[in-house]
Amino acid sequence: MSPKITTELLKQLRQVMKNPKYVQEPVQAYIVPSGDAHQSEYIAPCDCRRAFISGFDGSAGTAIVTEQHAAMWTDGRYFLQAAHQMDNNWTLMKMGLKDTPTQEDWLVSVLPEGSKVGVDPFIIPADQWKRMSKVLRSAGHDLVPVKDNLIDTIWKDCPQRPCKPLITLDLSYTGVSWRDKIVALRSKMAERKVLWFVVTALDEVAWLFNLRGSDVEYNPVFFAYAIIGMNTIRLFIDGERMMDPAVREHLQLDSTLEPEFKIQVLPYGSILSELQAVGAGLSPKEKVWLSDKASYALTEAIPKIYRYLTPYTPICIAKAVKNASETEGMRRAHIKDAVALCELFNWLEKEVPKGTVTEITAADKAEEFRSQQKDFVELSFATISSTGPNGAIIHYKPVPETNRTLSVNEIYLLDSGAQYKDGTTDVTRTMHFGTPSAYEKECFTYVLKGHIAVSAAIFPNGTKGHLLDSFARSALWDCGLDYLHGTGHGVGSFLNVHEGPCGISYKTFADEPLEAGMIVSDEPGYYEDGSFGIRIENVVLVIPAETKYNFKNRGSLTFEPLTLVPIQMKMIDVNLLTQKECNWVNAYHQKCREAVGAELERQGRHEALQWLIRETEPLIRVQ
Amino acid sequence: MSPKITTELLKQLRQVMKNPKYVQEPVQAYIVPSGDAHQSEYIAPCDCRRAFISGFDGSAGTAIVTEQHAAMWTDGRYFLQAAHQMDNNWTLMKMGLKDTPTQEDWLVSVLPEGSKVGVDPFIIPADQWKRMSKVLRSAGHDLVPVKDNLIDTIWKDCPQRPCKPLITLDLSYTGVSWRDKIVALRSKMAERKVLWFVVTALDEVAWLFNLRGSDVEYNPVFFAYAIIGMNTIRLFIDGERMMDPAVREHLQLDSTLEPEFKIQVLPYGSILSELQAVGAGLSPKEKVWLSDKASYALTEAIPKIYRYLTPYTPICIAKAVKNASETEGMRRAHIKDAVALCELFNWLEKEVPKGTVTEITAADKAEEFRSQQKDFVELSFATISSTGPNGAIIHYKPVPETNRTLSVNEIYLLDSGAQYKDGTTDVTRTMHFGTPSAYEKECFTYVLKGHIAVSAAIFPNGTKGHLLDSFARSALWDCGLDYLHGTGHGVGSFLNVHEGPCGISYKTFADEPLEAGMIVSDEPGYYEDGSFGIRIENVVLVIPAETKYNFKNRGSLTFEPLTLVPIQMKMIDVNLLTQKECNWVNAYHQKCREAVGAELERQGRHEALQWLIRETEPLIRVQ
Repeated sequence: MSPKITTELLKQLRQVMKNPKYVQEPVQAYIVPSGDAHQSEYIAPCDCRRAFISGFDGSAGTAIVTEQHAAMWTDGRYFLQAAHQMDNNWTLMKMGLKDTPTQEDWLVSVLPEGSKVGVDPFIIPADQWKRMSKVLRSAGHDLVPVKDNLIDTIWKDCPQRPCKPLITLDLSYTGVSWRDKIVALRSKMAERKVLWFVVTALDEVAWLFNLRGSDVEYNPVFFAYAIIGMNTIRLFIDGERMMDPAVREHLQLDSTLEPEFKIQVLPYGSILSELQAVGAGLSPKEKVWLSDKASYALTEAIPKIYRYLTPYTPICIAKAVKNASETEGMRRAHIKDAVALCELFNWLEKEVPKGTVTEITAADKAEEFRSQQKDFVELSFATISSTGPNGAIIHYKPVPETNRTLSVNEIYLLDSGAQYKDGTTDVTRTMHFGTPSAYEKECFTYVLKGHIAVSAAIFPNGTKGHLLDSFARSALWDCGLDYLHGTGHGVGSFLNVHEGPCGISYKTFADEPLEAGMIVSDEPGYYEDGSFGIRIENVVLVIPAETKYNFKNRGSLTFEPLTLVPIQMKMIDVNLLTQKECNWVNAYHQKCREAVGAELERQGRHEALQWLIRETEPLIRVQ
Repeated sequence: MSPKITTELLKQLRQVMKNPKYVQEPVQAYIVPSGDAHQSEYIAPCDCRRAFISGFDGSAGTAIVTEQHAAMWTDGRYFLQAAHQMDNNWTLMKMGLKDTPTQEDWLVSVLPEGSKVGVDPFIIPADQWKRMSKVLRSAGHDLVPVKDNLIDTIWKDCPQRPCKPLITLDLSYTGVSWRDKIVALRSKMAERKVLWFVVTALDEVAWLFNLRGSDVEYNPVFFAYAIIGMNTIRLFIDGERMMDPAVREHLQLDSTLEPEFKIQVLPYGSILSELQAVGAGLSPKEKVWLSDKASYALTEAIPKIYRYLTPYTPICIAKAVKNASETEGMRRAHIKDAVALCELFNWLEKEVPKGTVTEITAADKAEEFRSQQKDFVELSFATISSTGPNGAIIHYKPVPETNRTLSVNEIYLLDSGAQYKDGTTDVTRTMHFGTPSAYEKECFTYVLKGHIAVSAAIFPNGTKGHLLDSFARSALWDCGLDYLHGTGHGVGSFLNVHEGPCGISYKTFADEPLEAGMIVSDEPGYYEDGSFGIRIENVVLVIPAETKYNFKNRGSLTFEPLTLVPIQMKMIDVNLLTQKECNWVNAYHQKCREAVGAELERQGRHEALQWLIRETEPLIRVQ
C-alpha cells in the first residue's frame, strides 16, 4: 500500500483557504472532519473528503490543514493504517496517547496570532464546534463557518450524492409501527415540554419510519432529515424513490389520515430554510429538541434560547432497546450467519493448505456463503480478513497491494458481518490452520478469558457498560499485555453495526446504562505489531440475570451471546482456563451445536455440520 | 438519635431571604452548600452552616430551602444518617439513584416563574455556579450571589473562626523544601504561560509551605490563601501564629532573601481585594491560574479573559505523588497505627464478652492506644465504631443516643485513622467476637475477594483509578450484592485523609491516572440495612509491577498495602477463596507479622504480639 501523494492537493486547498470567492477573510487553518452532514460514521463516497485530501480512509479521523502543516488525528485502531496511507506532508496525531495534543491545543501551538480557523458548518457537530471555538477564542483565534466546503471546490471528480430505492419493513420485523413510534416520541417531547424534534442522524430517520435504504455502503440508511411537531411530520428526502407505490403505501402518503400522522415530504436540501422558519415562529418557552451532535448549521438555525440539546435523543435510546420481534430477528440472523461461517471455516480448512486462498478470496468466499442465506441484504462493514502481520492492523481491509496468502504457519483473523432484513451481525474469529505456537495460544487464551469475563459478567440494573471494560483486560494486564481499542459497541437491528448510546469502553463515559434488550459486541483482542492479531467477538444481548440475593430487588443483568460460531479450540491453552471458564466454553459450544446444527441440517449442509460437531467437542481441563 | 427540629429556623431563614437588609431583591430559594470558602470537605464549626440549618452533619450534602420546600442532597454513605437527623420539614434527595433529580432540575420543577436563587459566592465553587446558573437561566430563573451569608444572619451563637498555632515540618518529613516547591510550581506556571497562581485549598497551602495547623478537626490545615507570582509570594493568614519564632525561621521571614522567595504576609480577609488588584493590573495574554473549584467570588475577581482554570492544580497533582521521605514516613506511621490496633483488638477480645464495651468506649480506647505512639497528633477523621445495625450506616459516628454495647452476637466495624507527624492512616476492620453466621461470613468473603482483586490488580501505566472500581464489586455482583460508595480515595501525607486527584470509584471520571508514589485506599464493603455492615480497608501505595511482557515497555503498576493489620480469619469462608486469593491473605499476614511484630517487640507489647502471631497463622484451603 503506497501512500497518496497530496502535495498538489494541499497546495490547492491552501490557495482556496485564501480565495475571497470562498472565504470572506483568509483562513489560516481548515478542519476536515470525518463525518457527513448527519455525523455518520460510515459515509457515502461524495462525503469522503478527509480520505480525498489525505489518503487515509479509516472510519475515524480528523484532518487539519494550516499554511505550514497538515495533521491527522485518529485512534489506536488506525495508527498503522494511517501511517501507511499518508505521505510525508502529514503528521499523525495518535489519540489516546499521553503526549498527543488535542486538535484545539495543537492549533493554538502552531497558529500565528489572531488566526481564523475554517470549517464546514454542516459537517461539524455543534458540541464539537462549541468546545473548539471556546479554546480557540480564549487563545485569540476565531473558529469561522465556511459555507462552501473547500474540499468540494478542489475535488474535480467528486461523485454524486446517492439516492437509491427504499426498503419498507413490516411489523413482523420492526414490532412497532412508525405511527406508534411517532406517538411514543411525542409523549417524550411532551414530558420534556418541547414542541419540535429534529431527526438528524440517518439511522434515526430510518428507524422512526421503518424504512431502510442503501445510500451508504454497509449501513442500510438513506439521506433524509425529519422535523416532528406535535401535530406535523415533515420528511426531507429526495428522488424518485418517494414515487414507489410500496413506500407511499407504507407511509400512507395517499390515504386520508388524521392530520397529526400526515407526512409532508419536502426536498432534502430545504431542511435549513424550513428549520429557520420553525425557529423564527417560536414564542418564549417553546423549545426545539436536537442532538448536541447535530451539525452547527442546523443548531444555529434555532435561536439559542429555544434549543433543547441532549447527548442522546429519545429515538437513539428507544432504538437501542430491542423489542421481542427485533430480538427474535437478531437471533435468526445470527444463526444464518453462523451457517455461512461454518461453511467458510470448513472450506478454509481444506483449501488453506493448498496455498491458493488469499485474504481477498477468503473475504469473498465469506460473502458468497452469507449471500446464500435468506433475507441477506449486504455486508454490515468492510470485511477484515487478515493473516500474519496484517492482523495487527486493527481495522485492516485487504487490498491487492497488501493481500497475503493464508497459510498453515500464520494466524488468520476474520472480522465480518452482514445485514439481513431480520438483523445485523458482527463476528470475529481468530483461527490457525496449522499448529499455533505456545505464545500465540497463550495470548489467545488471555483474550478468551477477557471475552468470557465480560460475557458472563453479572451486574446490577443501572450499570453503565464502561464499568465492564476492565473485566475484558484483567487477564491480559496480569501478564503485561493490553489492546488499544474499546471492548464493545452497540449494534443496530438491520441498521448500523455501530450505534449508541451504550458500549463497553474505557473511553466512553457518556454511555447510557445497560438495559435488558440492548445489544452490544464483546470483542477484546491482542495485537503484536509485525506478527499477528487476535480478536474474539460475539454480539451479545443484555438479559435479566438470576442471582442468589438479587441486589435487594434492584435486579440484575448479564449477557446472552447471539453470535453462535465455535471458538477454535486448538488456539486455547486449556490449562490457563479456570474450571468455570472451561464450562463456559463448553456450554457455549453446546449451544452453537444445537442451534446452528439444526439449521445446517435443515439446509442440508452436511459437511459443514460435521465440521461444527467436531469443533464443538467439550474441552477437558487437565488438573 | 432524634432529628433536629428546624421549623423555627426555616421560618427565620425564609424571612431573611426576603429582607432588603441582606438581599437586593427577595430570593425564592437559598442554597446552603457543604463546604467552606476553600471547598474543604471537613470544615470548622463556624462553617457548619448546612448542619446548623438541617441537623444533618455528614461530610457531604447540599441543602436548598425555598418558600415551600427544604431539600437535602446527599450520597449513599449518608442516606440513613440524613434520614435520622432531619425532621419532617426536609425531603431527602438520594444522589446516585435513577429517579433523584439534580438540584438544578428540582429547582426548575418547584420554583415560580422568574425566580431568584441565592447563594454565598464565597462558598459555591465556580464550576458548580456555572453549571447551575446555566440550567436556571435557560429555565428563566437567576442564580444570584448574596454577599452576607444568610445562615450566619440567623445563627445567634455561631462559633469564632479558629486560628491555632502552626507546626513546621522539616526536610526529613517533607523531602522537599518550600522554596523548591515554589520553584517547581513556577516552572509549571511558565510551561502554561501563566503569571499568577492562586492557592485556595487549605491542604495545598499547607503542603506548599511545609506547614501544618489545627484550625479544622482531623485535617492538619489552617485558614490561609496564597498568591504566587513569578517574583512574589503572598500568604494570607491571620493571628498571633505568624509571630512564632519557629514559623518565622521556617519561612525565613526575617532573613535577607532573594526577592522572589520573600514571603509577604497579609491578612486572611484581604485576599479578595488583593486578587482584584492583581486582576486589574493584567495586560492582554497575561493569565491567572485558579482551580475550577475555587469559589465563585475569587474566580470573578479575575476578568474572564485572564482566567486559566483547571480541574486539578499543579500543587494537587504534585502533592499526590509522594516522594521517598513521605513514603517512608507513611510506612512508619502505618506500623505504629497497626501496633495500636493490635493492642485494641487484643483488648476487645478480652473485654467484649464481659458486656462492658460500647461503640464509644471502643473508639476512645483506639484513640488512647494511638496517642501512645510517637509523633501522634490527632485522629484523621471521626472514628466509625459501629456494631450490628449501626454498621449499615456507612459513615456512622457513635453518639450517646445511638451507642450500642459490643457483644459476641454482632459484627463490629471499626473505620479509624490518625494523623502522625510522619503520615496519615485510615483503616477499616470488621470483626466478630463470637461466632459469625454463615451468611455474614459469605458476605465478608465476597468483600475480601473484592479487596484483594483491587490490591493485587496489575494495570498499565496511564490507567485511571476508576477503571479498577468494578474489580472490587465483581464477587459481590455475582451473588446479587453491591455497595453504594466508591472503592477508594487519595490519602494525604500528614494531610487530609481524603485528597485528589486520584481515586477508585464508579463515580469519578475526572480522576488523574494512577502513578507510582500515589497513595489511595482500597475499601469495598457490604451493608445490610438494619443488620450489619462489613468493610475491609487498607491504605495502599502505587508501585511499579513486574509482568511477563511489560506492556511493550509501557510499564505497569500495582499496589503495596501500607496498612498492616490482620484481617480476621474467623470471618473468612476459606472455601470461597481461590488458591491465589488464599495465598494473598497468607502473604499479607506474614508481612503484618514481620513488620508490626518487630515494632510490638521493640515497644515491649508482648500480649499484643501474641495476639498478632495468633491472628496471622496461615489459612488453609480445603480442596
